[in-house]
Amino acid sequence: MSIVTLTTDFGLQDWFVGSMKGVILSLRPEITLVDITHQIPPGDIVAGAFALAASFQSFPSGTVHVAVVDPGVGGQRSIIAAETENCILLGPDNGILSLALALDRPRRICQIENNRYFRKNVSRTFHGRDIFGPVAAHLSAGLAMTALGRELAGYQPLNFPLPREESDQLVGAVQYVDRFGNAITNLPEAWPVWRGIRQLELRMGQRELVLPVCESYDAVAQGEALAIFGSTGFLEVAIRGGSAAETLGLQRGDLVVAQRPPGTK
Amino acid sequence: MSIVTLTTDFGLQDWFVGSMKGVILSLRPEITLVDITHQIPPGDIVAGAFALAASFQSFPSGTVHVAVVDPGVGGQRSIIAAETENCILLGPDNGILSLALALDRPRRICQIENNRYFRKNVSRTFHGRDIFGPVAAHLSAGLAMTALGRELAGYQPLNFPLPREESDQLVGAVQYVDRFGNAITNLPEAWPVWRGIRQLELRMGQRELVLPVCESYDAVAQGEALAIFGSTGFLEVAIRGGSAAETLGLQRGDLVVAQRPPGTK
Amino acid sequence: MSIVTLTTDFGLQDWFVGSMKGVILSLRPEITLVDITHQIPPGDIVAGAFALAASFQSFPSGTVHVAVVDPGVGGQRSIIAAETENCILLGPDNGILSLALALDRPRRICQIENNRYFRKNVSRTFHGRDIFGPVAAHLSAGLAMTALGRELAGYQPLNFPLPREESDQLVGAVQYVDRFGNAITNLPEAWPVWRGIRQLELRMGQRELVLPVCESYDAVAQGEALAIFGSTGFLEVAIRGGSAAETLGLQRGDLVVAQRPPGTK
Repeated sequence: MSIVTLTTDFGLQDWFVGSMKGVILSLRPEITLVDITHQIPPGDIVAGAFALAASFQSFPSGTVHVAVVDPGVGGQRSIIAAETENCILLGPDNGILSLALALDRPRRICQIENNRYFRKNVSRTFHGRDIFGPVAAHLSAGLAMTALGRELAGYQPLNFPLPREESDQLVGAVQYVDRFGNAITNLPEAWPVWRGIRQLELRMGQRELVLPVCESYDAVAQGEALAIFGSTGFLEVAIRGGSAAETLGLQRGDLVVAQRPPGTK
Repeated sequence: MSIVTLTTDFGLQDWFVGSMKGVILSLRPEITLVDITHQIPPGDIVAGAFALAASFQSFPSGTVHVAVVDPGVGGQRSIIAAETENCILLGPDNGILSLALALDRPRRICQIENNRYFRKNVSRTFHGRDIFGPVAAHLSAGLAMTALGRELAGYQPLNFPLPREESDQLVGAVQYVDRFGNAITNLPEAWPVWRGIRQLELRMGQRELVLPVCESYDAVAQGEALAIFGSTGFLEVAIRGGSAAETLGLQRGDLVVAQRPPGTK
Repeated sequence: MSIVTLTTDFGLQDWFVGSMKGVILSLRPEITLVDITHQIPPGDIVAGAFALAASFQSFPSGTVHVAVVDPGVGGQRSIIAAETENCILLGPDNGILSLALALDRPRRICQIENNRYFRKNVSRTFHGRDIFGPVAAHLSAGLAMTALGRELAGYQPLNFPLPREESDQLVGAVQYVDRFGNAITNLPEAWPVWRGIRQLELRMGQRELVLPVCESYDAVAQGEALAIFGSTGFLEVAIRGGSAAETLGLQRGDLVVAQRPPGTK
């Protein structure tokens, strides 16, 4: 079995995803293609990086993950592939792989530059079809990364703040708003200070919230807000049966300040 | 061959569908995954139930159908699997399987509670990935339903009215509006009174309509309304080249009253 | 390996695509199904024809391409299949196959009328499930086209103007606006007059534009407009990091007049 996943901003209204899949299957018909999402907002590298990081570890060992949110297509930006213990990641070197690589450290990173493995006649604007697709197929077939280009020492980080602890506060940001309107912060569940807390004082964007920390949505009444540690391992703010983003006016990048729970240092 | 179909309200903008597929393929790489739809409006159990019921019989025998519209995720609701002569259905016990099970009677229904078949570390909010996905993979591999939990006597019905005959009327409701704006009622084509009728007096929502009963859209002029027995076996109201829902202001739940055709009792 | 691609206006909110796939897999479980797009605007044959033509040549030899944008479903329109050197195309005879067939000439065209290869109980409104799906599965299995119906001499052309040369001008139209807001014209890159040009005077819709002809989006500043020969082989107008269609008010069908580059005849 060989799986290749796709995370792009190509959308589903045009033929872009189909063309990219056609090229991959032309080279390796036995590949199983899985869409993570193609609805990343056009050019939104942060959203693409988060969607990839949130999902790639659900796939079996050996999967090739391709992420193409690539506003610099055809220009000066590089393309990179990274090999970890579990998988291979392929994308433009614009930060889109960085959140995944922070979870699953790369053993090797290579620049993709050997056009022998590209489609003939690479277009100016559609490297998903002409470079990422064919290279993903070759990587999935076991081609050594070093055949594709020279090894690199690192990769571009993402232009998004990391959470930090201040004296009596935890300071982060909304990093993603999902289709249900849940505001996913970058405050990790793994932070030991959370242990045993039942209530949270949050400043999110313009709002001051005091929220119960819940184990399920139905712990509060319909329409009420809650805090919950979600499936990606981060603190989320949700509204039961509604959209927290809409009701509370939250969006990506909004500052989130959590009052340090009493009794923690 | 093993097919698993997915019907959810996860949407396509986030990574939810991709993660669920990754988990399924991790357990059983040879499964063919087919999306019914992931665009059920968030939490809309009635729409999910109808989409599933409208499509599941198009699949080959042995298919496992998973439906996850699950506003109660992580709370008190149960998860059930139902085995029919033709397929296996899996979903929360909130009515989402009920329309399908009315068409294809269950031989056995079991509660899903044996966490040995769940993903390790079940999250609070994403049982599609952590429970439904892995259980579907195991069911598709032939795991006996009784290994998953105790047998149940029944399942939750759907909170939606059934059509009925009154003295000189047939009374139903719009049960689904599709992307073309067709208003699909719950009045079944199989009702013997329809036989041979050419014209229909309908009260739909706020409108009184006299519609020709047609065999194809082009039986009326562009922009004209018609009644047609559609591909799911129900009476639909459509507008040729347009949206009946928009033009006539129809939505799900609108009362539909059909005057009993003359000469029928 | 057998690939069947699908290009439709069925949308993704309902079960239509899933049902069609179920029928295909019921007949031939080993088929790999690839979605080109299901988001063609309802009934928009021109958009469907372009999406198909832009993508079908990315697939391996032997692929069956099914295109269903079919406002005349159930009425008088014919269904056709066309065999080229590389693939088989299947769709209603309303022009949707015509742009693809202009790129890859048919060796044989047949009318699809032998209901032995249809689903039992063909519905009035869903020939994607009841005719196109099963016929595609049979064609993919190697059924001779002539078993499906009589050979035809031709097919319906598309109702869209072709570009033409006038004395000192090239006259075409916007033929597609993609999700990024790129306005794809029907002026082909293959036109010899373009050779070596660096700048273009265009009249597009209501606008007079003087645009640099670029090799990549980042050749201009963020927010600036450019002309680029795109991945489908046509002249496109784009805005770096923005939507040309929105900013310049462009839509499909808008006249595009390119001043003949100086020094060409």
